[in-house]
Amino acid sequence: MKKLFERIEKLGEIPSQLADKDFLLTWEKSNADLQMILEVADMLKTMRGRNISTRVFDSGLAVSNFRDKSTRTRFSFASASNLLGLTVQDLDEEKSQISHGETVRETAAMISFLTDFIGIRDDIFLGEGNRYMREVASSLDESYKHGVLPIRPGVINLQCDMDHPTQSMADLMHLKDVYGSLEALKGKKIVMSWAYSPSYGKPLSVPQGIIALMTRYGMNVHLAYPSGYGLIPDIVRMAERNATQSGGTFKINHSMEEAMQDADIVYPKSWAPYHIMERRTQLLKKGDAAGLQSLEQECLENNSQHIHWEYNEQHRQLTKDQNALYMHCLPADISGVSCERGEVSEQTFERSRLQTYMEAGYKPYIIAAMMFCYRFRSPAAGLKKIAENHSPRIRYEQE
Amino acid sequence: MKKLFERIEKLGEIPSQLADKDFLLTWEKSNADLQMILEVADMLKTMRGRNISTRVFDSGLAVSNFRDKSTRTRFSFASASNLLGLTVQDLDEEKSQISHGETVRETAAMISFLTDFIGIRDDIFLGEGNRYMREVASSLDESYKHGVLPIRPGVINLQCDMDHPTQSMADLMHLKDVYGSLEALKGKKIVMSWAYSPSYGKPLSVPQGIIALMTRYGMNVHLAYPSGYGLIPDIVRMAERNATQSGGTFKINHSMEEAMQDADIVYPKSWAPYHIMERRTQLLKKGDAAGLQSLEQECLENNSQHIHWEYNEQHRQLTKDQNALYMHCLPADISGVSCERGEVSEQTFERSRLQTYMEAGYKPYIIAAMMFCYRFRSPAAGLKKIAENHSPRIRYEQE
Amino acid sequence: MKKLFERIEKLGEIPSQLADKDFLLTWEKSNADLQMILEVADMLKTMRGRNISTRVFDSGLAVSNFRDKSTRTRFSFASASNLLGLTVQDLDEEKSQISHGETVRETAAMISFLTDFIGIRDDIFLGEGNRYMREVASSLDESYKHGVLPIRPGVINLQCDMDHPTQSMADLMHLKDVYGSLEALKGKKIVMSWAYSPSYGKPLSVPQGIIALMTRYGMNVHLAYPSGYGLIPDIVRMAERNATQSGGTFKINHSMEEAMQDADIVYPKSWAPYHIMERRTQLLKKGDAAGLQSLEQECLENNSQHIHWEYNEQHRQLTKDQNALYMHCLPADISGVSCERGEVSEQTFERSRLQTYMEAGYKPYIIAAMMFCYRFRSPAAGLKKIAENHSPRIRYEQE
Repeated sequence: MKKLFERIEKLGEIPSQLADKDFLLTWEKSNADLQMILEVADMLKTMRGRNISTRVFDSGLAVSNFRDKSTRTRFSFASASNLLGLTVQDLDEEKSQISHGETVRETAAMISFLTDFIGIRDDIFLGEGNRYMREVASSLDESYKHGVLPIRPGVINLQCDMDHPTQSMADLMHLKDVYGSLEALKGKKIVMSWAYSPSYGKPLSVPQGIIALMTRYGMNVHLAYPSGYGLIPDIVRMAERNATQSGGTFKINHSMEEAMQDADIVYPKSWAPYHIMERRTQLLKKGDAAGLQSLEQECLENNSQHIHWEYNEQHRQLTKDQNALYMHCLPADISGVSCERGEVSEQTFERSRLQTYMEAGYKPYIIAAMMFCYRFRSPAAGLKKIAENHSPRIRYEQE
Repeated sequence: MKKLFERIEKLGEIPSQLADKDFLLTWEKSNADLQMILEVADMLKTMRGRNISTRVFDSGLAVSNFRDKSTRTRFSFASASNLLGLTVQDLDEEKSQISHGETVRETAAMISFLTDFIGIRDDIFLGEGNRYMREVASSLDESYKHGVLPIRPGVINLQCDMDHPTQSMADLMHLKDVYGSLEALKGKKIVMSWAYSPSYGKPLSVPQGIIALMTRYGMNVHLAYPSGYGLIPDIVRMAERNATQSGGTFKINHSMEEAMQDADIVYPKSWAPYHIMERRTQLLKKGDAAGLQSLEQECLENNSQHIHWEYNEQHRQLTKDQNALYMHCLPADISGVSCERGEVSEQTFERSRLQTYMEAGYKPYIIAAMMFCYRFRSPAAGLKKIAENHSPRIRYEQE
Repeated sequence: MKKLFERIEKLGEIPSQLADKDFLLTWEKSNADLQMILEVADMLKTMRGRNISTRVFDSGLAVSNFRDKSTRTRFSFASASNLLGLTVQDLDEEKSQISHGETVRETAAMISFLTDFIGIRDDIFLGEGNRYMREVASSLDESYKHGVLPIRPGVINLQCDMDHPTQSMADLMHLKDVYGSLEALKGKKIVMSWAYSPSYGKPLSVPQGIIALMTRYGMNVHLAYPSGYGLIPDIVRMAERNATQSGGTFKINHSMEEAMQDADIVYPKSWAPYHIMERRTQLLKKGDAAGLQSLEQECLENNSQHIHWEYNEQHRQLTKDQNALYMHCLPADISGVSCERGEVSEQTFERSRLQTYMEAGYKPYIIAAMMFCYRFRSPAAGLKKIAENHSPRIRYEQE
């Protein structure tokens, strides 16, 4: 416990500014902010592991608004809310309906009278998801300002068209734990690589989130994809700037083999090309079913030309010590398991399977840390009181 | 805090009889009962605003049974349950199935073994909704009497064919806060007016609930609708009696313009005519799809003749000081926003938009007060203990 | 309270071994294990009845995974979880999809990072349900062993193809309360009888669970069904062995009248023949819709030859003192109520209706006891601390 109190003490020195600010994009947050999130997440995890209750809310709702399917993030949000004492209430909308204007303003108020957080996943429409979250956020501002709401609920991005911050932060936490510190990531080569998948229309938020975040830690970030599978240009340019500022590098290339050379870390994952997602968004908005079907056909045909972008033993042999850390947000398309040919071979995935589970296990704590730091002006002071109080999560347990 | 304790002390003088009695219709409750609900709701709201936990249940379920769609009331019920420490468990039925007899008796017991409250919305079938709630209630009586249930769960009407008491009581709480007291409502003119909507089959429970409740407070209640759009006759007659007894008035007329003259408060809202709802119920029971479609057609055609029943700036100009308080249970059909022509013009709604959000914000506390007064024989004693205990809702918070 | 402490003290003498062991089949548990579950369930029920909070978890999730419809067991699981302080999070899968291999291993980990229990219903496919639960369980073992999970969540069988242990244990608890003790069951004649139902494909788990469990208590267990309606042969053989060991008897016959002679307890309930369920499973796996329809046709025709297997007043007259205890897991198919002809006549069911509700009311406590005994190495020590702490479930209540 002494070590825990020392760590909490040191937290007080981090000049983060997270209170009362939504978590919508990692690139709106300072390095101090991100460091604080990682530390708080780690301490919540440590305390739960020691059967210390971190329940800071005696009551309160956490609203989830999933405008796309989710199991992992849904359970992570539920776990995080529960860890802090909040009850999840799901807002069930028609998935296809993009609500804006009046409806959003009103709904945001109606679901928030006794609500502490709203978590939103909206990743289907390019140019819409993050915008929708901001619309919810500014509606909450208005309602709070005019006394409609007793407190301003925090908004957490559970994946949008631009970023997937709870995923990328969980990934960063995993890297920090594997390598010992954020400093140790300097100079490490990480490859965010496109990989083949028989499905279509996977969001861009994970690769974008990874290149935007990892370039801030002095890493050598390689983005690899077949020509034509680019990401949102603005985010790619930001990754370049980040790398320059952090003393790392950022490179793009179009061969998986080339990219994997001497990689410390690999993240092979499928996504739809940016320009396809733009056309898809237009068709979805028009409700053009025939156009969507022909776009899907075209896209799957394109994909099928890149079936060799499967991460496998041959690729692994090229990496640093033939032993790069394999990462994935899960579920992966595993060749011969979940599909005929996919993002990764069965043998290669199996080597790292349990490590990908570990990686996923950080997400509930990252979300809880985002909530904690939104509500507690001094997270260190809050954590200190929790540790001092030392109330058990499972009561009456035998020693 | 001293003022809070004084207010709690005064509560003890209200001769309410709410314990162990379901809340199914406002007109089954005495004025003292309703006053107590309003006071308790207000104190729960005040205490939550001061970060005092009002969690009186350490465990227990609140079952919600929505036999019609709901977002606002669903969140209000979830918020109220959570505020008191209960966990919502949803009973998901086939919406179209009207269960009676054996099934209701059995289901009522099966969902109640560890349940403290059951909230029911059943507003589709005229003559059925409130009856269903009573069937549930008497099944609970039987099961409790014979030792099947350890306690008798309370039943709360979340909208039926006759009344919408959580809405009308929230509306009354809003009026009390706007005008300062229930006494201040005496002599105020409130207009419950039909308004045009492009949809069909909206329940009668809101206008019926409003005229039945507001006539008890010495108000001048005007019910306005196009000929043929009447409400359940028994409830209209009750409103007349209420007005006589309370020293107010109750009038019906068939012109929105005429009704709005010098109004203090206006509540323009669409509903389906009583006799149409009766025919609809018959057709629904028979499962006559063709009949339903032709009735809808007929009804929409009728509606379209009253498209000028839209509350707008012209109407507002007619009201007291051109500034009547606008009320709505939300969502409103706003012309040019949620539909081409609707219940209210965009400009007029926008003036009062945030006030309608305030109005909606009372509902969670009204529901919580109904629960609290059902369970605590002396609500004043219970509230006093909460205030004395002064346990924080958000723990470890910085001052 | 003194008596409660004495009973808790005596619990310490029962040599049960329930900690860290899933509850998948009653026949994997010793008599001491089952006795402990019954005692703990009874004490949780007693304490809740005295407004003592048995909330041992300050936070934590209980995941429910219903691969078949459920209302009763769903509410029982929710009630049990809530009673102990856990929050239910539902895992919503496609019902028809049998997930195995990679998917199960991964999903088991993903839903378990902050989870204390997983309750599973999977009763559609013969040979699959219990196997699926074991696959989940061994996936949890692996993830826990490798540090992916901070604790090993317990798995509870909420009905599979073989057993329905939360039902049969609730039934046993009911019998114990009716007759005063487990010892008093010795020599009692219980008839588990097939009964006619107009539906098809009802699981075998209830009759199998009953004959496997009740034969362990020295009862005279009669299994009655029309020729061709047998259960899984291995389970029938186990029931025979159990009866021999416990000093009871086990008999099969093919006439309801014969079976009911002098019965103390009767459990008339429909099920599908074992060999039909096997064929159905094959057809379901192949997705053979036409085959399934023709099997259903064949099966309903077979059923219709046994329409006289309805438990009614004539049958009741044959039982001990014309007054056998009637049991059912509910809902029963009641002739003239829920169907034209069914498992039991209206008059006969009505005599025992409230007793069947009582029977159902034990299930939440049985599930809670399974959870409690999984987590607390010494259930007696845990219960003692709860009783000593004597924290109220409903706080601030008036005396």
